[in-house]
Amino acid sequence: MGNSPEEALQNELGSVVSTDPRVCYEHAFDGLKIAFTPQAVIMPTEREQIGTTLKLANQWKVPVTVRGAGSTLTGGATPVKAGWVINMTQLNNIHVDAENQYAEAQAGAVLKDIQDKVEGVGLFYPPDPSSHKWCTIGGNIACNAGGLRCVKYGVTRDYVLALKGYLPTGEFVEWGRNVKKFATGFNIRDLWIGSEGCLGVVTDVTLRLIEKPEAKLTFLAGFSDEEKALKASLEILQSGIRPSIMEFIDALSVQGASLRTGYSFFPEINSPAVLLIEIDGNSLQLENERLKLENQLTKLTPYTQVAHNEQDAEKLWEVRRKCSGAMFRLGNSKLNEDVVVPLSKMVKLVSFIRDLRKRLHDTIAVFGHAGDGNLHVNIMYDRDNSTQSKNAEQALEELMHEVIRLGGAISGEHGVGLAKSEFMDAQFSATELQLMQQIKRTFDPNGILNPGKLFEVFKPWEYQKQDYQFPWDKK
Amino acid sequence: MGNSPEEALQNELGSVVSTDPRVCYEHAFDGLKIAFTPQAVIMPTEREQIGTTLKLANQWKVPVTVRGAGSTLTGGATPVKAGWVINMTQLNNIHVDAENQYAEAQAGAVLKDIQDKVEGVGLFYPPDPSSHKWCTIGGNIACNAGGLRCVKYGVTRDYVLALKGYLPTGEFVEWGRNVKKFATGFNIRDLWIGSEGCLGVVTDVTLRLIEKPEAKLTFLAGFSDEEKALKASLEILQSGIRPSIMEFIDALSVQGASLRTGYSFFPEINSPAVLLIEIDGNSLQLENERLKLENQLTKLTPYTQVAHNEQDAEKLWEVRRKCSGAMFRLGNSKLNEDVVVPLSKMVKLVSFIRDLRKRLHDTIAVFGHAGDGNLHVNIMYDRDNSTQSKNAEQALEELMHEVIRLGGAISGEHGVGLAKSEFMDAQFSATELQLMQQIKRTFDPNGILNPGKLFEVFKPWEYQKQDYQFPWDKK
Repeated sequence: MGNSPEEALQNELGSVVSTDPRVCYEHAFDGLKIAFTPQAVIMPTEREQIGTTLKLANQWKVPVTVRGAGSTLTGGATPVKAGWVINMTQLNNIHVDAENQYAEAQAGAVLKDIQDKVEGVGLFYPPDPSSHKWCTIGGNIACNAGGLRCVKYGVTRDYVLALKGYLPTGEFVEWGRNVKKFATGFNIRDLWIGSEGCLGVVTDVTLRLIEKPEAKLTFLAGFSDEEKALKASLEILQSGIRPSIMEFIDALSVQGASLRTGYSFFPEINSPAVLLIEIDGNSLQLENERLKLENQLTKLTPYTQVAHNEQDAEKLWEVRRKCSGAMFRLGNSKLNEDVVVPLSKMVKLVSFIRDLRKRLHDTIAVFGHAGDGNLHVNIMYDRDNSTQSKNAEQALEELMHEVIRLGGAISGEHGVGLAKSEFMDAQFSATELQLMQQIKRTFDPNGILNPGKLFEVFKPWEYQKQDYQFPWDKK
Repeated sequence: MGNSPEEALQNELGSVVSTDPRVCYEHAFDGLKIAFTPQAVIMPTEREQIGTTLKLANQWKVPVTVRGAGSTLTGGATPVKAGWVINMTQLNNIHVDAENQYAEAQAGAVLKDIQDKVEGVGLFYPPDPSSHKWCTIGGNIACNAGGLRCVKYGVTRDYVLALKGYLPTGEFVEWGRNVKKFATGFNIRDLWIGSEGCLGVVTDVTLRLIEKPEAKLTFLAGFSDEEKALKASLEILQSGIRPSIMEFIDALSVQGASLRTGYSFFPEINSPAVLLIEIDGNSLQLENERLKLENQLTKLTPYTQVAHNEQDAEKLWEVRRKCSGAMFRLGNSKLNEDVVVPLSKMVKLVSFIRDLRKRLHDTIAVFGHAGDGNLHVNIMYDRDNSTQSKNAEQALEELMHEVIRLGGAISGEHGVGLAKSEFMDAQFSATELQLMQQIKRTFDPNGILNPGKLFEVFKPWEYQKQDYQFPWDKK
């Protein structure tokens, strides 16, 4: 076996194992940027190396954390208990089966590479988290990633037919098949999806594909306040229109985007909130939807812009693309929450946040997926200012409890990871949490895989963040 | 506690408990019609009575089987270890929230009642198993029910937002929320769905609703053999048409329907196989799809009928509605398998069945959901004829192994129950089966809930069937 776990690992796997301090540092943190340095990094080039790693980890009782690009914002891929990190990015093959309308990909394949290959044969894989140029499909499965197009097309889970991979104890398993319906045995496929790397290591995934929409059309609508914008989003859905995207951006976020772009989105409105809406389909459907949407928008606001070409659309999209980065003018630190509430409760949530701003902490900006009730609440603060830090934490706590009171959930698409672990006992009963932890032990009796996540309270704001620029970090 | 488990139960719950032999007999079997008489039947009128029942069952170590209408064909609701049966049909409230586009229903609500209420406000809940007039939504969740419209709209799982209910040990839990996205904690909602009543008792469900399609159009296309029909179904899908229904009916099944209806479906073809296709949408979409479909069909077969009104459509539907009942002219017993394979493998499967017919047993009729690769294989035989019985069993075994070899699954929509338990170890590895059973023990340490299902081999053909007519039994 060797004299140390790492020696045993290197004896078995050779050059795919690294203990180089620089490599270990680069795998010490993810998008949350709180570092815990692992003892070794494994970059498998063959699936079986993962089984070998897990078997050794169980023998030596070494924690193992699996990661793709590391673009998660929750710390889900942070090796918080150190040990070993498996970096999946070398396992990145993609095969598209156009006849059966599915794609088979290895877990380390980058989402955009899958989408490009799929669209190359006229098919479509809709989930589109904003990290799509970097994030891997394995990471998407770990947190059941969403994105902009969910309102029409659903989330990652809705497209996964089958998964292959390893149990935490190192045995190879297969859940689901490359078929459209499956009612055989317990559905462990969907238990793995969204389990944040705690119940197994996904190595291979089969994704259901659909027809690629022929064309799309982008609208931007301005409103004098947030409540009016959100009510409008509900009325659009209720009128039977099926937008492919319906993003809400609050006044504070629009201001930020205006400062960044030097462009005033609705100069007629003092401090506008906006809806960015996209419809898609074949030309006939699109024309039909366009008429319905324009008709609705006319009733809802006098301020509407429509993009007649790609270039114009890109201009409208600026308000959404730039608003997130622009947040940092409001504070050097961000608590970024992807809460979700029933559609009809969005207005209440935004009113509650307005009250929070007045009462406690004024730099809270909200944007996100109005068609799903999935809003990104950005609590911006200066971490060197202790009053601001305290108030930001207090605002976060009140926000989470309000979301739960409204019948919602503390995460709609990012997952819990480390960042939301403090609020799990507000979301779930003791019985529910206990059962989840029993399930964890059933899969992983030695607690090897991604320990410390979801069920142990971790307060990110108590840690120093790494000053590190990921490719997706735009200032 | 009382002197016997049933006495304890009656002390706690009073008149919702029955030990009347006639009531017990009526709960002794489901659509599989193999009887195991329970000691008591509970018909809860309040959710909490289920928790009480389960707690007592754990104290007294009494098996509990939960049922709705009992229309399952797999024996999933058969109390094979006797004990107590909970009949959910009194818990049948339905509430539609049109604003948020969801319906909340108690588990005992009949699917058709839900659909009627939902369609009454212009919305749509697509899953439509053929038992929809009788089956309950709780049963649909237990086996992740499919139906005819899955090819376009998906299965039960695709519409479940949230579940409430009891763990096998009697504690109340809630999985998911009434929101469109949920990435918080392990996804036990989807583990419950399709777990065939083994991991918990669902009491309440929230179903996502969609816009009701305005209109539909029905086509019947005749082919000179099964392979041509199935290849045509693939080409239709690949051409980008999204039929709401695409049913395949083989020549033997069409013959049966002809005998039952006295109507010759395609007199020009000697022994035709057919595709029954429905498209739906708003009038614009429908017109668009109609043109594309007619264009495709012209290339694929000279024999096509289209229904221009409800009455004509009903006539075309006769071939599908009558073919199942007509099977019984081929034998007094049926092994009804709902196997599923990748779309491109359907042709191979049907060729294999043709070979089985020649080699082993000639009365095997196939119809089903060609758009999903989910075919119903009906092995008809005379159970008083021992050679026929033996050959039917042999044909079943060969069929199941071929389905697995083709990358498919032994059940696409009915579930495993008792009927398919023999083939679980062909579908799954020892590791996979062991994990499923460990999960079962994690939820249900005393093995109270629906014991004997999925993991214990049961051979239905060795049992005498009850001579009993359910409302859905049509001769």
